[in-house]
Amino acid sequence: MIGVPGTPIAAPLVAMVGGGQLARMTHQAAIALGQTLRVLAAAPDDPAAQVTPDVVVGSHTDLDDLRRVAAGADVLTFDHEHVPNELLEKLVAEGVNVAPPPQALAHAQDKLVMRERLTALDAPVPRFAGVSRVAELDSVDEFAGRVGGPVVVKAVRGGYDGRGVRMAHDVAQAREAAWGFLAAGVPVLVEERVELRRELAALVARSPFGQGAAWPVVQTVQRDGICMEVIAPAPGLDDDVGVEAQQLALRLAAELGVVGVLAVELFETTDGRLLVNELAMRPHNSGHWTMDGARTSQFEQHLRAVLDYPLGDTGATVPVTVMANVLGAAHTPTMTVDERLHHLFARMPEARVHLYGKGERPGRKIGHVNFLGSDEAEVAKLRERAALAAHWLSHGQWRADDDGWEPHG
Amino acid sequence: MIGVPGTPIAAPLVAMVGGGQLARMTHQAAIALGQTLRVLAAAPDDPAAQVTPDVVVGSHTDLDDLRRVAAGADVLTFDHEHVPNELLEKLVAEGVNVAPPPQALAHAQDKLVMRERLTALDAPVPRFAGVSRVAELDSVDEFAGRVGGPVVVKAVRGGYDGRGVRMAHDVAQAREAAWGFLAAGVPVLVEERVELRRELAALVARSPFGQGAAWPVVQTVQRDGICMEVIAPAPGLDDDVGVEAQQLALRLAAELGVVGVLAVELFETTDGRLLVNELAMRPHNSGHWTMDGARTSQFEQHLRAVLDYPLGDTGATVPVTVMANVLGAAHTPTMTVDERLHHLFARMPEARVHLYGKGERPGRKIGHVNFLGSDEAEVAKLRERAALAAHWLSHGQWRADDDGWEPHG
Repeated sequence: MIGVPGTPIAAPLVAMVGGGQLARMTHQAAIALGQTLRVLAAAPDDPAAQVTPDVVVGSHTDLDDLRRVAAGADVLTFDHEHVPNELLEKLVAEGVNVAPPPQALAHAQDKLVMRERLTALDAPVPRFAGVSRVAELDSVDEFAGRVGGPVVVKAVRGGYDGRGVRMAHDVAQAREAAWGFLAAGVPVLVEERVELRRELAALVARSPFGQGAAWPVVQTVQRDGICMEVIAPAPGLDDDVGVEAQQLALRLAAELGVVGVLAVELFETTDGRLLVNELAMRPHNSGHWTMDGARTSQFEQHLRAVLDYPLGDTGATVPVTVMANVLGAAHTPTMTVDERLHHLFARMPEARVHLYGKGERPGRKIGHVNFLGSDEAEVAKLRERAALAAHWLSHGQWRADDDGWEPHG
Repeated sequence: MIGVPGTPIAAPLVAMVGGGQLARMTHQAAIALGQTLRVLAAAPDDPAAQVTPDVVVGSHTDLDDLRRVAAGADVLTFDHEHVPNELLEKLVAEGVNVAPPPQALAHAQDKLVMRERLTALDAPVPRFAGVSRVAELDSVDEFAGRVGGPVVVKAVRGGYDGRGVRMAHDVAQAREAAWGFLAAGVPVLVEERVELRRELAALVARSPFGQGAAWPVVQTVQRDGICMEVIAPAPGLDDDVGVEAQQLALRLAAELGVVGVLAVELFETTDGRLLVNELAMRPHNSGHWTMDGARTSQFEQHLRAVLDYPLGDTGATVPVTVMANVLGAAHTPTMTVDERLHHLFARMPEARVHLYGKGERPGRKIGHVNFLGSDEAEVAKLRERAALAAHWLSHGQWRADDDGWEPHG
């Protein structure tokens, strides 16, 4: 790669499995760094495939498609965690640089593997039990009896945005939920339903060299298991708790051998403890605020990490940033997205808008907005404006409607 | 464009003439807004053509190529001002929405047209004379005699980055420089060489609706006619002078009928006057700081303006931002750009890097860096770090070298 005068720069080539919005936004970051992002997209109109010229259309469960996207790339990385690990092992054996490596990624693919490993690492998690077969259903009763309260039943694999998660108020409901997953061949994780003050997320990145970098810890607001809102930094978070969360995330990144961005979703309990809920090893919804509110976005940082560059400054540019997701409404508005965008910009010139080029389906993430504040005291105002903006873009209405969504709900 | 559930959003299509770095960075902004950017590139490896899938390879002086890139687009805009105006008039007659319109763009294409119009608008400009033919060479003597000092001779068309500009210390030099351009068929502008305190730039955007928005006025630092550094806001600028510059730029945008971004390059004279030097009607080097330092970047704003969206917040996110251009060095370093980038990130994790994917040729703009400060008092430190970073990326050396370049030189 020695420079030849007048010829284009020989840039690193990053291959990403998945053509969704995370790949789309990673491409924006790759442009700035002079890199080439190649994506493996399921369809030519996937969000990332719309905007980058280097697209392989294929399946993330097809080894040959994975080989095609990885061919000649400096590194293979992901915008989701659904590639079967045995295929990744094969690619590694063939010399592909997979980041994060499959042995790390396993902890983002299987909730039971993750919880057991975290327990071994003495990381705080809710009490849980794994159930692999219908024949073991009685252990659901045993666990529910032991924790003595409502439990949550989760499919260990394949869930996202609230899918694969069932709340159970009693043992009968828990058995029924577990049976549903087990009968379909998916093992379950049964866990105590903890008393939450709120949910937090600690986002870090780690490079193969071993460098780690942590962004400020954020608060996430979920609705039906879908992230609706992120507040950065988490308002009123005790400094010690914030540092504890960052150190935990950095330690887990190192212990698990993560390469790239690691999101650690956390419960802050009413009695002030932090418990690890989920792990994601890729740019994550809880980090979308970094596109406008941090010195280095999670997308640039992920590229830097998987290519083993030194990591960028994770400091905030402004005292507070609020992100709100734009979800497809139950009834697609008659006003087009483009028209809604015109009206939004007229009313809120400060809104930072990120659209994914996706079709509108109920509950589908089609974009997000960021609102930046110059004073932490503005957080309530920013949350209200962000929620209104996101709701407007979704629904074409400026107020809560019959979908039942209310700002801060 | 009524939304159909589940189908990708029908996004605005913006066609841009030119596949350089300005188009490349405009594509980054288009991605966030869910738009499609189609570029007319001279070659498939042009900076923008590397990163967007919608590329027409052709010439900006070929009417059919221009028609191809404009076909079906909501608007046709530019990353340079070199499209012959008569071709644009034809496109307009054929129904193409050209922004900025050709009658506005003429003032960014021909320096004499611009100076005469600005004089008619009572906008402050250096004293000047236009010379169209060799037979009029005596008017150079007459003008030089009248201003009684050194003059500058400029080709009225086709110059950029210092090309097409000659400094003349006496009448003989001025005649010789003018003769050179005139003999090649290019009229010249002869102007007084004013006593400069420094150069400033006022960047604004204007929409067809008539909305205008001004970013903070910046200081630009040139070397051999090439912008090397931009400081936002211009340090120590008198508030009244800053407002005067913004109002002048907004007034010119309105009077000339500009649609999109307008950069007004200004001389601040030693006696405190502002004089208009040049106009550019597109995203401009003096606005690259907005990518990291402003709420709305000039690239997003240009898209919003040409599509007649309401304009975005032009406020700064941080108190001071310094931009430095990365130019190809006289001798291409043996260390690759990628290796240089590794070292830069290791030493300066706060550097915001933007690379254009261009081959390294001496003096060619191949990227820029932004440094953000949290206090205006940091400006000297930021300038030093930005200059060092840019020089390192250019030369693979951390100090001034035999190219004669020194930070702040």
